Amino acid sequence: MPVVIDRARSRDRIAHDVLTLTEPQYTSSSTAICRYAYTPEYRRTADYFAARLRELGFEVWEDAVGNLVGQNVPRGERVYGLGSHCDSNRNGGPWDGPLGVAVALEVCRLSGEHGLDLPLRVISFLEEEGSGFGQMLLGSRIAAGRITDEELRDGLRAIDDGRPFVEHAREAGYRPQEWRSCSETLDDLDGWIETHIEQGRVLQDEGTTLGIVEAIAGYVHADVHLDGRAGHAGATPMIGRADALATAAEIILEAERLAVQAGHATVATVGELDVEPGLINVVPGAVRLSLDTRGVREDAFRGVASALESFAQEAARRRGVAARYVQRTAVAPTPMDAGILAALQESADAAGITHRRMASGAAHDTMCVAGRAPSAMVFVPCRDGISHAPEEDSDPADAALAAEVVLNALVRLRATAPS
Amino acid sequence: MPVVIDRARSRDRIAHDVLTLTEPQYTSSSTAICRYAYTPEYRRTADYFAARLRELGFEVWEDAVGNLVGQNVPRGERVYGLGSHCDSNRNGGPWDGPLGVAVALEVCRLSGEHGLDLPLRVISFLEEEGSGFGQMLLGSRIAAGRITDEELRDGLRAIDDGRPFVEHAREAGYRPQEWRSCSETLDDLDGWIETHIEQGRVLQDEGTTLGIVEAIAGYVHADVHLDGRAGHAGATPMIGRADALATAAEIILEAERLAVQAGHATVATVGELDVEPGLINVVPGAVRLSLDTRGVREDAFRGVASALESFAQEAARRRGVAARYVQRTAVAPTPMDAGILAALQESADAAGITHRRMASGAAHDTMCVAGRAPSAMVFVPCRDGISHAPEEDSDPADAALAAEVVLNALVRLRATAPS
Repeated sequence: MPVVIDRARSRDRIAHDVLTLTEPQYTSSSTAICRYAYTPEYRRTADYFAARLRELGFEVWEDAVGNLVGQNVPRGERVYGLGSHCDSNRNGGPWDGPLGVAVALEVCRLSGEHGLDLPLRVISFLEEEGSGFGQMLLGSRIAAGRITDEELRDGLRAIDDGRPFVEHAREAGYRPQEWRSCSETLDDLDGWIETHIEQGRVLQDEGTTLGIVEAIAGYVHADVHLDGRAGHAGATPMIGRADALATAAEIILEAERLAVQAGHATVATVGELDVEPGLINVVPGAVRLSLDTRGVREDAFRGVASALESFAQEAARRRGVAARYVQRTAVAPTPMDAGILAALQESADAAGITHRRMASGAAHDTMCVAGRAPSAMVFVPCRDGISHAPEEDSDPADAALAAEVVLNALVRLRATAPS
Repeated sequence: MPVVIDRARSRDRIAHDVLTLTEPQYTSSSTAICRYAYTPEYRRTADYFAARLRELGFEVWEDAVGNLVGQNVPRGERVYGLGSHCDSNRNGGPWDGPLGVAVALEVCRLSGEHGLDLPLRVISFLEEEGSGFGQMLLGSRIAAGRITDEELRDGLRAIDDGRPFVEHAREAGYRPQEWRSCSETLDDLDGWIETHIEQGRVLQDEGTTLGIVEAIAGYVHADVHLDGRAGHAGATPMIGRADALATAAEIILEAERLAVQAGHATVATVGELDVEPGLINVVPGAVRLSLDTRGVREDAFRGVASALESFAQEAARRRGVAARYVQRTAVAPTPMDAGILAALQESADAAGITHRRMASGAAHDTMCVAGRAPSAMVFVPCRDGISHAPEEDSDPADAALAAEVVLNALVRLRATAPS
């Protein structure tokens, strides 16, 4: 029998948690949510969740870099993990991250209130957005050991002041030199479920309440640097130009064409483009453009990236421009755990909550957790697919349904687990 | 019989003038030439030319906004005008502008040394590059009355501190409220010749020494604003995107195609492009791009502009993007005076100096003078067509030949003028 919850009460509690964290002491901006690792507003946000967990009798600690952990059974016992992150991007909204921590907290409350005694760990990962130090999923990558000493020591500097990550971490009271011990944050997990806003509009446009994420897309991030020849817009005939922006235009359209052709929901985006010198009356001499191509089929998105690299070389050569393709990152897709997916689906069905299987196009901390524990994610609709913007909005009633489904999925998992 | 000059001496004197003005007191940057109206380095530059003219016995003054004028006959007598400008763009080189003033000065020297007694006026126009106040050809437009009280009072603000042009002008000791009196700067001209670097590579690539400019291109400057829909690059399927940058890419390529199709050496350039939000993992929600289309055939370049406006609307509609086309400026082509062109050509032929007729794709102060006096321009090659950059380079030996041709053209014009 599924646990039946007071949905209105859960809705109100989740709304209270998320909206409290939009108050001035939790953000450095008056027009957006802005909080990055090791800032006072981030400290207060983590303290807010820590206090709520302690009220429920959880032991709460932070690992050597500042991932927040709360647990209701002694350390070393097997637990189910729930959580997300509570930092924001640089022009953020209330829901991306905190929603998942608030849903985790609500599941903890419900487990206690309904006498379920689920062994639970809540994790709020540090610096998921990379807004403080420029590297996404930082806390979960450290916990998963997906980083090197060199990267931590030399590659990570604060966007705001250029000082090293390790300096900031030490000043905030952490022990970044002991980062390998953060591995313990992911020990003993029998399962992991992260709830997050969809950051797309599929659920909204379909009228479906929850997304059950069966895979997180992998991606290639790259830059294409084009070096042509600047020239006076009036004094340089069309023939003989080496226009870096016209070359870029061909590449942008080809990226789009390649993604559509690749199928399997592969996407490709050129989101950044810088023009030098960037004057109305000068033929562009140099352009840098970014490529983001993703999907759950690695051959498909990697094919887009490599075909685009070849196309860029060819288009540039035709135009007397030099092209340089530089890969920033390549990440494989992360499949979710079939058992947890089934438990989520059965729980949603039992409660009559509409849902669909879907891929996550966005990256999430769960990509790092999935190497250590059976993992899954639940998506909640967000208005018009907007995220990473102050207008980001979501319905706490949907979040309450996510909490209900996650709670019941854990009950199912425990019931079927080998003891 | 043409006047035969000591070309090496003229080369050295022109080189001395231009290169002196690259010394630290004449530029605010250590890596480029930077001087804008009403700055100390601009003041010193104007003073340099004023002192050289006074040494030749010229009367020197500045008009109500600061155009520098020197003349070797009493005011009110008919003169031939020579000159250019001595401000720079924001990342400028030594030659764009000062070359023309230095050649004018050299013609004055030669006229004296050869006992020609030509009645001469040298003008160095204020703020041709628009680097101080954002409006090109400012001094010559004011002299030509091609500006309004409103523009001068409300439309012109210093790029560096946002304060009004009139404030800066007054503080520098000028009388901007009397700008209409600057019209006198263009009185009494029997002809006008401006020498300038080509800012293209046609002369260099052909191995021709001088360009004799038969028309200055007109142009349309416009912006296209595209409003699509930002979305997470991973969570937004290819179908249903409203990608402002992909729309812009189509427009960039169409601008190029339209210019080539228009013929008559019409050109079109997209030189500025801003992407919002400009993040690798966000589908671009908004783009602004600039259009510069020019030529000496007004129907041709205006046709490019209007066809591109239609194309932008259509491409945007296809993609669910809103397009807004906003014209900044439209300027008609300026034909040069046939008599002066013939005199220049005959002088070059007589001296055995290679030359070609050509259009100026770039705008020049001569566009404003041409409404008041028969006008022409002479182009000197510049290395690789580079201008508006510290690497800008030109050969003072070519400039000396330009001075020789201009001097002899004036002698011819005087000989054939009705007395």
